Amino acid sequence: MPHSRRPSDPRYGNRPTMKDVAARAGVGLKTVSRVVNGEAGVTPDTERRVQEAIDALGFRRNDSARVLRKGRTATVGLILEDLADPFYGPLNRAVEEVARAHGALLINGSSAEDPDRERELALALCARRVDGLIVIPAGEDHRYLEPEIRAGVATVFVDRPAGRIDADVVLSDSFGGARHGVAHLIAGGHRRIGFIGDHPRIHTATERLRGYRAAMADAGLPVAGSWVSLGSTAPGRVAAAARSMLAGPDAVSAVFAGNNRVTVTLVRVLADRENARGRERRGEGEYPVALVGFDDFELADLLRPGVTVVDQDPAALGRVATDRLFQRLAGADLPPARIELPTRLIPRGSGELPPAGG
Amino acid sequence: MPHSRRPSDPRYGNRPTMKDVAARAGVGLKTVSRVVNGEAGVTPDTERRVQEAIDALGFRRNDSARVLRKGRTATVGLILEDLADPFYGPLNRAVEEVARAHGALLINGSSAEDPDRERELALALCARRVDGLIVIPAGEDHRYLEPEIRAGVATVFVDRPAGRIDADVVLSDSFGGARHGVAHLIAGGHRRIGFIGDHPRIHTATERLRGYRAAMADAGLPVAGSWVSLGSTAPGRVAAAARSMLAGPDAVSAVFAGNNRVTVTLVRVLADRENARGRERRGEGEYPVALVGFDDFELADLLRPGVTVVDQDPAALGRVATDRLFQRLAGADLPPARIELPTRLIPRGSGELPPAGG
Repeated sequence: MPHSRRPSDPRYGNRPTMKDVAARAGVGLKTVSRVVNGEAGVTPDTERRVQEAIDALGFRRNDSARVLRKGRTATVGLILEDLADPFYGPLNRAVEEVARAHGALLINGSSAEDPDRERELALALCARRVDGLIVIPAGEDHRYLEPEIRAGVATVFVDRPAGRIDADVVLSDSFGGARHGVAHLIAGGHRRIGFIGDHPRIHTATERLRGYRAAMADAGLPVAGSWVSLGSTAPGRVAAAARSMLAGPDAVSAVFAGNNRVTVTLVRVLADRENARGRERRGEGEYPVALVGFDDFELADLLRPGVTVVDQDPAALGRVATDRLFQRLAGADLPPARIELPTRLIPRGSGELPPAGG
Repeated sequence: MPHSRRPSDPRYGNRPTMKDVAARAGVGLKTVSRVVNGEAGVTPDTERRVQEAIDALGFRRNDSARVLRKGRTATVGLILEDLADPFYGPLNRAVEEVARAHGALLINGSSAEDPDRERELALALCARRVDGLIVIPAGEDHRYLEPEIRAGVATVFVDRPAGRIDADVVLSDSFGGARHGVAHLIAGGHRRIGFIGDHPRIHTATERLRGYRAAMADAGLPVAGSWVSLGSTAPGRVAAAARSMLAGPDAVSAVFAGNNRVTVTLVRVLADRENARGRERRGEGEYPVALVGFDDFELADLLRPGVTVVDQDPAALGRVATDRLFQRLAGADLPPARIELPTRLIPRGSGELPPAGG
């Protein structure tokens, strides 16, 4: 029951106290209090010493007493990556539902895929006294969170692992899912298969590319350099990459899309291509292009053809990550874990189109 | 420049100070400080008096000095309604982009359409020292925000107006947009038109219903009681309402959907119906049902038929609301305004299907 917990509750960890800061800085408790509360009467030199002790110990002013007296609840922070990507909607809502079931409030922010922004936001949420933090990381170095974690902020990463710190992560089997999706295209007779994915600095993008390469290698198929394109998921970039792969003597007969943003653009590119074919005489070597995408998306089954996808479960990612967070907040002494959720291939038509002459 | 502003900056309004609280409570400044900082040494009676003065004055502890010393930025809070509704994605991202352009951080939360949750979250964000608040309201009474607004928290409502307080609101022309969409169906020959919308306590739902009724009245068409259904946008509820309207002697030949969640379910219901017709002998009086939906949605143009929609611009709603918020934060002395953005009809096929015999 969040309303009855005390700030000294051991399940919130052994946070350093103002006394610890005072001892380390060699000053009195009153001086630490003045610095922490932004009050006057402290010399710059003393303030610096106190601030150094605060940083070294990972001290956070504990306002729980005040918060509890006002009847406020525990708070969990969630750092998302792209607020407009529908993939994160069910994840976000699942985190909120689990938090609410624990009587906690959820506050969110978005890094917009910018590591500096992620760091600024995570520390801002910690400064605003979140009890726990769920992070979809944009950056590759999360050592900046170590003082907060030591100070008792439970932290779980989701969708992508933390960088350079050992922390819980809950993610989908990107490698296995992509490998399965590409093997499905190969089983349908395709030999020239393209891969279009997100930025190579994003863990899921490189894992899915690795799955694509593994499936091709499993089947003894070569991969031409022009068949792989990683980068922004902006529609213009993806459409240009697709048109380039679909032209020339090395043209692919099928494409694997690295995430839902890429798939949606490819659906549009392939529909435009089919419409153009309807208006003109069919050229030599033209054929409908097969498509399998990572991530399911709304209405994928109502398109013609329906879009074959490797489905992950974003709501389950959110639920499992938040359950883990509340286990930590309840004081469970768990080593950092990597929890990987399975994916599922859903054939709907686009991934079952045969290659030319197939 | 957020980094250079001082806590006493007049553009943040005349917030009551600890001195004001002390004077009102008839106690010394130190006592107020103790209560605010949750320190010991205050009798319960004195604490109660101080707390009453804090509540009466709308005092908020101003941590800006401490925040600025650590190089942190201004913060804006956004209260959403449903984290998984794709309509809010672009709105959310637009708010974030404008906030970032002003050097401010954005933190979000969701009311999940629950007025108590909205209130709890709004006050929690205020307690966490947001400088401004953008609210997509779930409740109908926002007087709880008055002390925060008086204390200097700039507040703008978006998508739906505030209840029982006079505050800025930025919204789409729901009435005019629905009227236009229904008039479009009437111009195509439809006389029996259904309306399926969100909960009647949601402002946009009743405004769109009003637009539907106005268009029917403009054309001198009666509205049967069975043609109007407001309630949850859960797929089961919407599908049952649709099937009921599409059956019997009063069956409608066209449906207007009150928002994107309703439209997507109707697309699915109508596709199932067409598939069933393809398998069976076509019954007497069966015909394809026309559909116009409020809100555009991803892939609406790639469905067959394409879905005709009344498009609003959620990103513009977010941008205009956040611009307004920052005008207030910059000290602009503006009376509360209602800013209404126009909608746009996009014909794509589903809204141009003729009625039976038409």
